[in-house]
Amino acid sequence: MASISGTPKKSLMLFSGRAYPELAEEVAKYLNVSVVPQAAYDFANGEIFVRFEESVRGCDAFVVQSHTAPINQWVMEQLIMVDALKRASAKRITVIMPFYPYARQDKKHRGREPISARLIADLFKTAGADRIMTVDLHTAQISGFFDGPVDHLWAMALLADHVRNRYGTEELTVVSPDSGRTKLAEKWADMLDGCPIAFIHKTRDPLKPNEVVANRVVGEVRDRLCVVIDDMVDTGGTIVKAVEQLVEAGAKGVIVAATHGVLSGPAVERLQNSSAREVVLTNTLPIPADKQFDKLTVLSIAPLLAQAIQQVFEDGSVTSLFDGNA
Amino acid sequence: MASISGTPKKSLMLFSGRAYPELAEEVAKYLNVSVVPQAAYDFANGEIFVRFEESVRGCDAFVVQSHTAPINQWVMEQLIMVDALKRASAKRITVIMPFYPYARQDKKHRGREPISARLIADLFKTAGADRIMTVDLHTAQISGFFDGPVDHLWAMALLADHVRNRYGTEELTVVSPDSGRTKLAEKWADMLDGCPIAFIHKTRDPLKPNEVVANRVVGEVRDRLCVVIDDMVDTGGTIVKAVEQLVEAGAKGVIVAATHGVLSGPAVERLQNSSAREVVLTNTLPIPADKQFDKLTVLSIAPLLAQAIQQVFEDGSVTSLFDGNA
Amino acid sequence: MASISGTPKKSLMLFSGRAYPELAEEVAKYLNVSVVPQAAYDFANGEIFVRFEESVRGCDAFVVQSHTAPINQWVMEQLIMVDALKRASAKRITVIMPFYPYARQDKKHRGREPISARLIADLFKTAGADRIMTVDLHTAQISGFFDGPVDHLWAMALLADHVRNRYGTEELTVVSPDSGRTKLAEKWADMLDGCPIAFIHKTRDPLKPNEVVANRVVGEVRDRLCVVIDDMVDTGGTIVKAVEQLVEAGAKGVIVAATHGVLSGPAVERLQNSSAREVVLTNTLPIPADKQFDKLTVLSIAPLLAQAIQQVFEDGSVTSLFDGNA
Amino acid sequence: MASISGTPKKSLMLFSGRAYPELAEEVAKYLNVSVVPQAAYDFANGEIFVRFEESVRGCDAFVVQSHTAPINQWVMEQLIMVDALKRASAKRITVIMPFYPYARQDKKHRGREPISARLIADLFKTAGADRIMTVDLHTAQISGFFDGPVDHLWAMALLADHVRNRYGTEELTVVSPDSGRTKLAEKWADMLDGCPIAFIHKTRDPLKPNEVVANRVVGEVRDRLCVVIDDMVDTGGTIVKAVEQLVEAGAKGVIVAATHGVLSGPAVERLQNSSAREVVLTNTLPIPADKQFDKLTVLSIAPLLAQAIQQVFEDGSVTSLFDGNA
Amino acid sequence: MASISGTPKKSLMLFSGRAYPELAEEVAKYLNVSVVPQAAYDFANGEIFVRFEESVRGCDAFVVQSHTAPINQWVMEQLIMVDALKRASAKRITVIMPFYPYARQDKKHRGREPISARLIADLFKTAGADRIMTVDLHTAQISGFFDGPVDHLWAMALLADHVRNRYGTEELTVVSPDSGRTKLAEKWADMLDGCPIAFIHKTRDPLKPNEVVANRVVGEVRDRLCVVIDDMVDTGGTIVKAVEQLVEAGAKGVIVAATHGVLSGPAVERLQNSSAREVVLTNTLPIPADKQFDKLTVLSIAPLLAQAIQQVFEDGSVTSLFDGNA
Amino acid sequence: MASISGTPKKSLMLFSGRAYPELAEEVAKYLNVSVVPQAAYDFANGEIFVRFEESVRGCDAFVVQSHTAPINQWVMEQLIMVDALKRASAKRITVIMPFYPYARQDKKHRGREPISARLIADLFKTAGADRIMTVDLHTAQISGFFDGPVDHLWAMALLADHVRNRYGTEELTVVSPDSGRTKLAEKWADMLDGCPIAFIHKTRDPLKPNEVVANRVVGEVRDRLCVVIDDMVDTGGTIVKAVEQLVEAGAKGVIVAATHGVLSGPAVERLQNSSAREVVLTNTLPIPADKQFDKLTVLSIAPLLAQAIQQVFEDGSVTSLFDGNA
Repeated sequence: MASISGTPKKSLMLFSGRAYPELAEEVAKYLNVSVVPQAAYDFANGEIFVRFEESVRGCDAFVVQSHTAPINQWVMEQLIMVDALKRASAKRITVIMPFYPYARQDKKHRGREPISARLIADLFKTAGADRIMTVDLHTAQISGFFDGPVDHLWAMALLADHVRNRYGTEELTVVSPDSGRTKLAEKWADMLDGCPIAFIHKTRDPLKPNEVVANRVVGEVRDRLCVVIDDMVDTGGTIVKAVEQLVEAGAKGVIVAATHGVLSGPAVERLQNSSAREVVLTNTLPIPADKQFDKLTVLSIAPLLAQAIQQVFEDGSVTSLFDGNA
Repeated sequence: MASISGTPKKSLMLFSGRAYPELAEEVAKYLNVSVVPQAAYDFANGEIFVRFEESVRGCDAFVVQSHTAPINQWVMEQLIMVDALKRASAKRITVIMPFYPYARQDKKHRGREPISARLIADLFKTAGADRIMTVDLHTAQISGFFDGPVDHLWAMALLADHVRNRYGTEELTVVSPDSGRTKLAEKWADMLDGCPIAFIHKTRDPLKPNEVVANRVVGEVRDRLCVVIDDMVDTGGTIVKAVEQLVEAGAKGVIVAATHGVLSGPAVERLQNSSAREVVLTNTLPIPADKQFDKLTVLSIAPLLAQAIQQVFEDGSVTSLFDGNA
Repeated sequence: MASISGTPKKSLMLFSGRAYPELAEEVAKYLNVSVVPQAAYDFANGEIFVRFEESVRGCDAFVVQSHTAPINQWVMEQLIMVDALKRASAKRITVIMPFYPYARQDKKHRGREPISARLIADLFKTAGADRIMTVDLHTAQISGFFDGPVDHLWAMALLADHVRNRYGTEELTVVSPDSGRTKLAEKWADMLDGCPIAFIHKTRDPLKPNEVVANRVVGEVRDRLCVVIDDMVDTGGTIVKAVEQLVEAGAKGVIVAATHGVLSGPAVERLQNSSAREVVLTNTLPIPADKQFDKLTVLSIAPLLAQAIQQVFEDGSVTSLFDGNA
Repeated sequence: MASISGTPKKSLMLFSGRAYPELAEEVAKYLNVSVVPQAAYDFANGEIFVRFEESVRGCDAFVVQSHTAPINQWVMEQLIMVDALKRASAKRITVIMPFYPYARQDKKHRGREPISARLIADLFKTAGADRIMTVDLHTAQISGFFDGPVDHLWAMALLADHVRNRYGTEELTVVSPDSGRTKLAEKWADMLDGCPIAFIHKTRDPLKPNEVVANRVVGEVRDRLCVVIDDMVDTGGTIVKAVEQLVEAGAKGVIVAATHGVLSGPAVERLQNSSAREVVLTNTLPIPADKQFDKLTVLSIAPLLAQAIQQVFEDGSVTSLFDGNA
Repeated sequence: MASISGTPKKSLMLFSGRAYPELAEEVAKYLNVSVVPQAAYDFANGEIFVRFEESVRGCDAFVVQSHTAPINQWVMEQLIMVDALKRASAKRITVIMPFYPYARQDKKHRGREPISARLIADLFKTAGADRIMTVDLHTAQISGFFDGPVDHLWAMALLADHVRNRYGTEELTVVSPDSGRTKLAEKWADMLDGCPIAFIHKTRDPLKPNEVVANRVVGEVRDRLCVVIDDMVDTGGTIVKAVEQLVEAGAKGVIVAATHGVLSGPAVERLQNSSAREVVLTNTLPIPADKQFDKLTVLSIAPLLAQAIQQVFEDGSVTSLFDGNA
Repeated sequence: MASISGTPKKSLMLFSGRAYPELAEEVAKYLNVSVVPQAAYDFANGEIFVRFEESVRGCDAFVVQSHTAPINQWVMEQLIMVDALKRASAKRITVIMPFYPYARQDKKHRGREPISARLIADLFKTAGADRIMTVDLHTAQISGFFDGPVDHLWAMALLADHVRNRYGTEELTVVSPDSGRTKLAEKWADMLDGCPIAFIHKTRDPLKPNEVVANRVVGEVRDRLCVVIDDMVDTGGTIVKAVEQLVEAGAKGVIVAATHGVLSGPAVERLQNSSAREVVLTNTLPIPADKQFDKLTVLSIAPLLAQAIQQVFEDGSVTSLFDGNA
């Protein structure tokens, strides 16, 4: 007999970095699998070690990491996991990064800067990633940084549904906290029945180019419920300044909605003390107990991730999850 | 004697595709060189042939092409020129594309679309390009699509100087014709002494997602001279609609300023017949006599390209040409 | 449960560029599939847009394009289709180019020329092509330009069968129209029962190296039916000159047979007015109604393409289609 | 119907270079397949030609070559086989090199040397190898030279079992013939119930850095049965010197055990005439009749290779074959 | 004039990460240059930003980083610096990592592990590194992990000179703390006039393979001054255990010498409280004031780095710095 | 001072493999350099070791190897030399292979064959070759196999000059020994004042496709002096058969001229005993004393190689050496 024939099998395996294991566990629950057990620890000098405790040969691997602080630690851990999977003969490796690290450095703002978001894409390609799955990129162009398929999921519908359900009867204006998110505001407005949009215009002193000298609200906000939207809330500075400016400009109330709750430094205190009525985020990044506060609503991204993983594994359609938005 | 020693020389050579040889000639004049003579013609079935008529071995090659219609023809010609230079031992190859082709397809707007702007970057890398020089990218992220240095030049200062010189005494508002260029409008406003900005908000019917149902002017335009800005004017539809809407909304007058004059289809007629007082463009793309009209002012990009080439050749600073904007 | 297991499926999907959709339709009919519906159009400046209207995730994609004039347009369209398929997670992408574009520029004829046929192979690799399928390459070495499998199909048997069926009882001589196709003529002669071969020798003036000063028929043609063969007929100049020279040299009649009917410029008129009795071509390139003429016979390449696609999809043997010729 | 669906098949095919076909035949017997028939011969100037006589499209190819002298011949043959498989559309190509060629040149011992072991890995990657399978690498780091999965099999257990079965009741010391194999000796000692280890210390004259001036036995060997271990026996010089030194130092007897029997030049004569009681090797390299001698025991590596191939084909675990050693 | 000619210049520029700027400053002093000023800081979520404050176009860049804890932070910073240099048109980029990160994970110790040392090499290649300069690699094979030139510097001579100067009149034995460094001990012995060597043999329980059950000193140490050598001291566990075992075995005294002072966790306390007479390290990693202790001698690696940089910049010989050891 | 500036130097260094050191020595003499001294030898199992004895950092390296039997040995040696040069920081590496190995396997003659000539190009690229210099490729397409510049030198003029000088007054016919070299014959004819050409037509039995059943001379040869030309003479079978057939067909005499004297197996005896009047070859391959015979004339290729190296080093023109033929 010249050859042995057989029918190939395929097998979905889910892996999790140590940044936010609860998210992977939640995804696993929706998929009805277990996260693959592994040994993972740091050496005293910070070097990371990973070893999988089951054979991964031939599997369709999905590697979840949540890129929270210390972000370089978690980037490196996920790279090392991908390397180990590649060398252990995984068949296909999908890197899941619900919050794409270094997304804001997606261009040179001035000369002699890196384009770190492209670098991240190349590092994962080099380590062995075949595909990337991510949620609400800072700019959609980033998916072109990776040389391969990127499943770009949208949490906006999740957030917008929440806003509409709770405030749909009020007169809403969607507000971009700066001039760069106006397009996003327009998409939100379309989902909120065509309500008006506004944004905050920052003017700079031509002699001191990086210093903002004034903020003006552009658009109709008086006596309306404003929904300030963004892809992420980091230190909260820009967002909270927008909230207060809208109140000053006569807004009836302000809601904040964003996908990624980076919430670093003074963010929690700022948001808590702000005039915002509610802050809506998802859990693409962990929001530990000590960062939670009364006004905060956290929506889970896990069902969306689980659905998308299922589609990828079964060669279904991820586009169809968004009715034409992806 | 074990080896022959010597001092290397370097030599700048300028090459031009056939799309718009006048631009390369103008650049050559500023640099005080000649464009390298070449045989270039199309075979009957459209295949392009190129052969350089001087030795290019070891040269620092700068290859200018202007990506006007038929754009695929000119992309392929420039790729073929790069291939010929690589195989003829040019030392370094800089691809100059004042208008980056396919820049608008810089992301998947919906599923199962290409990211053609990334593809373009990869095609030139594959052909042998070491570097790219380009002007006013549709989105700055595109420079991250190329795996190597990109000199991204800014024509905005050129255009803004013209507007300030001619209209600086009037009360100006910078207007983005849609929500996606608001950030650009903000940069313009900073260059025009912090004047206000506005934009046109398009609302869509949620049931027919690609149909615009209404346009609203957001921002302060009444009794002001509006400067509608954009990176390019293609068919002129969006721009001209913005002009008329601003007039309706009480603007005192409207100026149009954009870097790339694609001017395809009905563009010329639309602009000519519009309420715009002046249309200011550069010649990153050729604007032949039959596309020129009374209101049109064309500023030459050649001096800027020549300066940047000089800096690249001499290992100077391109960033310094823009006082911190590049 | 640690993982989800399943049995993979595979799915053949056929895509078509816009150059010659009738060929893909004909192939589809033989395969009993439909061509995947897509949106494909040109922007006003010539930029091409493509979007597939069905999920292509995990499919075994076969992308047919016929590289007729304007050839750069169709090359770029096929590259863009491959990019879109790659980013939409097609499992394997086979580029079908019945006529390989730029095949004649497969070497530097003189210094400082491109090797465009190699460039084409690299461009498709970069875009994401896994494999190439093509028919009767200008030189077989071109299949070595691609870093991956190339299924090189032979239409010669198709053409030779036709000639043998119609003229098999006559005394045939196979004639190469120049010295570069003599090897091909020998293969034809083997298929036509070992008949003699001849070729046209062009002499050049040593002082004007690119000018042909005389053509001599080398080989036995008097009172025989000559079959002038070539891989393609472009402007028809060389072929028709050969036909007339054979008549002058006493041939009883002349048949022309070639795979690719480029038929550009004066080709149709020349062939029609020539002394050739019949011209036999295949439809690797479209031959529209206005290029058809009385003497012309067009054999369809679609059955061969369909058979080869089937073999590739089912891991059968393409070699076996040619009894040892591929 | 938009697409043709089907269930993929997979098919294991075994290929063999001409260096040591008996090994592949033995592996084939264990797997219950036949080695794929091929035409393979040398042209008069040494160029190698290979052609497979069955379709290999879509197969899971395992290519066995045994890198014995003339080693460059067999390296090149295996590279050419891999190229042919890639171009003939094999689905996955595993290169099996039981003895990794050039493994000793795994670093620069001094400046301006190659790292040939890395070069070998890159050459096979370039030719089209997806994976490598090898036995007892000279240093385990070599598996990091290949950009992909390496199945590194261990023959040590095979050898140690043999030694324990035959000499387990004696007082053993495992001896490294030089300071570089002490770690390996320690692993052996662990498999032989924690017996002591020793090594030979070579001192060099600081004025003539590459000349050994003395050898000292370091460790407990008097009145013990010494097992001199190594990964390979090449000319036998180091090994035989170690044997005699151990006898001088009072060893009761000496066994030699190594995986790879390179046995070049005077090796056979030296070992035969040495004080060694037994020499145990495997057949990762052929040991032809004229190299066999009384004291020699050759254990077959074929069962281990066959088991590993089976695991790879069926997506099982190779690690499990070694109880945690691989 | 067809081209502009000129004579190229070359320019050495020195860059420093933030992990240990004092080392780069010291190197700069020896080279008589300044470290290039840069903006470098961490965003609140740990993302790193870098911008060079001078034009780097065309420079020969040397980027120093010291890979101390938090090591992933410093790896990522250096990658980002390389990316910024590449995109800012540096001519050549040499990555200087005096301590190679993840060097201990240079192979799979068991199945399903990463080979992180190879990953590190690939990440830097991807970011844009042309060359690597490093000191005393954990294993020399690591230099084969990088696809390009690696200047592997040796600090051993520095350390050995110190030991010989201070203890040269005593009867020395060089001791490897485990079986894996015996080869290194042999090299040391050659530099210390051919003194004897010894090592510690760890035996493992075959039933609990990762548990060491006993340590035996193999070699001559009674009444001798032992020099325990290693490439690095991390937590100090193995080293200090070796020191005590040597004392127990009758050593007259013990010196510890190693290149890299990782000194993590309990290392300082352990060494301080050990029976070691002196601990000699270099400053490839920073040893801050709170990690310094009485017995500790730190030798500076800066002069060696500066010499090597000079040789690389001037196309001199790095090998010659080591009299044939590199 | 922020940086050290300097003027780069360049330095030509010539390296030679061991296949035919006399050729490199001859080239060196013309260039007035010495071949760089090196240690190069074979280990007992055939593994090759190379070390350069001078610093090669920053040099412009030219590596000459003559690919005679055992050809795989010499290919591997040259690959290893390139690897060593790359790792030792040579600035640019030009591989000189006067006879391109495996040039005849430049396509698949039938299915499931390798394209070894492409493989060779890729192997050298992978090892680190920047450029290739070669003489009279079997087919010019091979230069497209390498992804970089190929300097393809022509020895035809050298050979043709010799023939014209010696036989220019006779009535010549250039003869291709088979149908595949007719194009080459035509080029020769152009250099010999437009004399006629002929070729040998081999017919095959359609039922036994690889068996030649008859040879016919096609073209005018009676009473003429025939010059049988080819790129190489391997076993001499085809050539000598052609010679005898020409004599039978009435030729007045026969000269044989070819670039590469492979001369394997019975070649020398066949040529010596043939009716050929003279055999003209070059020394791209060594022709040792025992292969020389009375009728043989060997022209040296060294001056041409030396001129081309000089042009490459000095960024001159190689094309100009051939007056438009390269």
